[in-house]
Amino acid sequence: SGVIGSGLCVFSRFPILDTLLYQYSLNGYPYMLQHGDWFCGKSVGLVIIKISGIIFNVYVTHLHAEYSREKDAYLPHRLVQAWELAQFIRHTSKAADVVLLGGDLNMHPEDVGIRLLRGWTGLRDAFTEATRFEGCEDGCTLIPNNCFTVKSELLPFPLGIRIDYILYKAVSGFTVKCEELKTTTGTAPGMDIPFSDHEAVMATLHIQRQGQAVGANLGTTEPALVDVVTEARTEVGVGLRAAQRQRYSTGRMAVLALLLLLVQAAGALGTLAGLAAGQPFPKLSFSLLAFLAIGVLLLATALHLFHTMEVKMLQGTEEQLRMALRALQEHL
Amino acid sequence: SGVIGSGLCVFSRFPILDTLLYQYSLNGYPYMLQHGDWFCGKSVGLVIIKISGIIFNVYVTHLHAEYSREKDAYLPHRLVQAWELAQFIRHTSKAADVVLLGGDLNMHPEDVGIRLLRGWTGLRDAFTEATRFEGCEDGCTLIPNNCFTVKSELLPFPLGIRIDYILYKAVSGFTVKCEELKTTTGTAPGMDIPFSDHEAVMATLHIQRQGQAVGANLGTTEPALVDVVTEARTEVGVGLRAAQRQRYSTGRMAVLALLLLLVQAAGALGTLAGLAAGQPFPKLSFSLLAFLAIGVLLLATALHLFHTMEVKMLQGTEEQLRMALRALQEHL
Repeated sequence: SGVIGSGLCVFSRFPILDTLLYQYSLNGYPYMLQHGDWFCGKSVGLVIIKISGIIFNVYVTHLHAEYSREKDAYLPHRLVQAWELAQFIRHTSKAADVVLLGGDLNMHPEDVGIRLLRGWTGLRDAFTEATRFEGCEDGCTLIPNNCFTVKSELLPFPLGIRIDYILYKAVSGFTVKCEELKTTTGTAPGMDIPFSDHEAVMATLHIQRQGQAVGANLGTTEPALVDVVTEARTEVGVGLRAAQRQRYSTGRMAVLALLLLLVQAAGALGTLAGLAAGQPFPKLSFSLLAFLAIGVLLLATALHLFHTMEVKMLQGTEEQLRMALRALQEHL
Repeated sequence: SGVIGSGLCVFSRFPILDTLLYQYSLNGYPYMLQHGDWFCGKSVGLVIIKISGIIFNVYVTHLHAEYSREKDAYLPHRLVQAWELAQFIRHTSKAADVVLLGGDLNMHPEDVGIRLLRGWTGLRDAFTEATRFEGCEDGCTLIPNNCFTVKSELLPFPLGIRIDYILYKAVSGFTVKCEELKTTTGTAPGMDIPFSDHEAVMATLHIQRQGQAVGANLGTTEPALVDVVTEARTEVGVGLRAAQRQRYSTGRMAVLALLLLLVQAAGALGTLAGLAAGQPFPKLSFSLLAFLAIGVLLLATALHLFHTMEVKMLQGTEEQLRMALRALQEHL
């Protein structure tokens, strides 16, 4: 999807029975060329696989990057993505026996987005559940010791951060246990460089056809989930107000450019009709100004439309979170 | 969704338990302002409702309009939408007892898109299944007799066309029967005008908790479905090649504009350095040309990016249809 492609890929030893792709409705800004996330068309992919009669729904995704932890302008977009991811998993996994999610979620384990995702879907974190672990300390996947990472960004985190996950749950009559979790460390075998800027994560899961599914509905107790949804809603609200401000300022800019053009048109018509007293404007600067106004008008209109869509999506998500909250509170 | 909104709406007497929105990946072109479909962000909405313990997955959608039946430039986009709609319904309805789909599908009953949708999901057409019918002849919903319709477009269809549907199926242990189907006719009660440019469709369904679900898997026999998927794939392929041509021509336009700018920059530098013989270009036309080149460069680049995304989506759908075809043929 997108211009470049979402970068999602699944290789499977077992035949892939069915697939579905859901592109997130918000994913950064096209004019943030240096960040480029928008051009990827970030999505969640689903492949359905059957192994020994057990139906696996395997999800793979990559959420919007966090370029600054202190001033994270993309937090509302990433939260919308986390919510859409959780909803997509919930709605498409009802006939699955086992749900797996792998991906670069671009969220630290304690971040609100991952708590929302885990709480709303009941997915469990393979790292915290693993019986054995082997790899980077604390399961970090973005580490300063990797030659491709930007060291200055990781200064507050000397061990690195854990932002790549394998999450799982059993849906019906099955239990899943993570026997082993591994991350890559250091360079690729026989090479001077590592495989990627992130360490890879590998999980060995033990799936048993018996017992009640653990955490079949919600992953967190309901009062805790109320807090998580409230926190997410607040952050989405912050993003909504920022988007509304940008919609307003781009709209104002478009109106100003249009007014300038109208004034120029009136001036030009006046000159042509011989109504203007004194000498006319110099032709060159007059034309340059008109071209500039047309350029600003087109650009500001395009941005205004983009931010209108952003506002609609943030409003929709805030509304959905509000309804989820009401349902949770009624249940309590 | 989109700039204006998808125009989807569900009112329910029974509480809505859960919702999900899926925005189609292709939906016309932003520069086709006179058609405007792109600005709606056309989507399929899902609401889950429980009535007397029966779980209903109710889908509502509006596909891209057909502006010319002879030269239908939007057919590939509408087919991608029909395919995404079918896949979305299949993947999200696995825990439902009854599936309902209502919407303006902008396809005639015999069109390949509706055959694909019905064949791939097993949905049945309430109009053809209804025991009683009351309303416009042949169940037409876009009729010449409506004051809002464009009469000239309906000249080949004196009765009108049927493009608004209620489709349904039972998924597990239930049977659904359409007892009655009605369309509105003429003006709204107590008014001089009809409710809308389309006639509304109303179905009375009888749902019974017994027996085997009819058409639980595929709606059409597999050899017939192979033909439908092949036909859809051919049409998507036609759209793909058109999109590739547009991607190429917009890319070439951007490169030409860039070359013109570079030539102008070289000329301007040459004049500044006093290298040019004779008199320089007139400043006014030189600047106007440069502005024009910048404008064309930006516009062509934006269009090139858009058509690159279109190509990716059409390719992805063609690939999915190819895989569906292979699975069907293996099964046969």
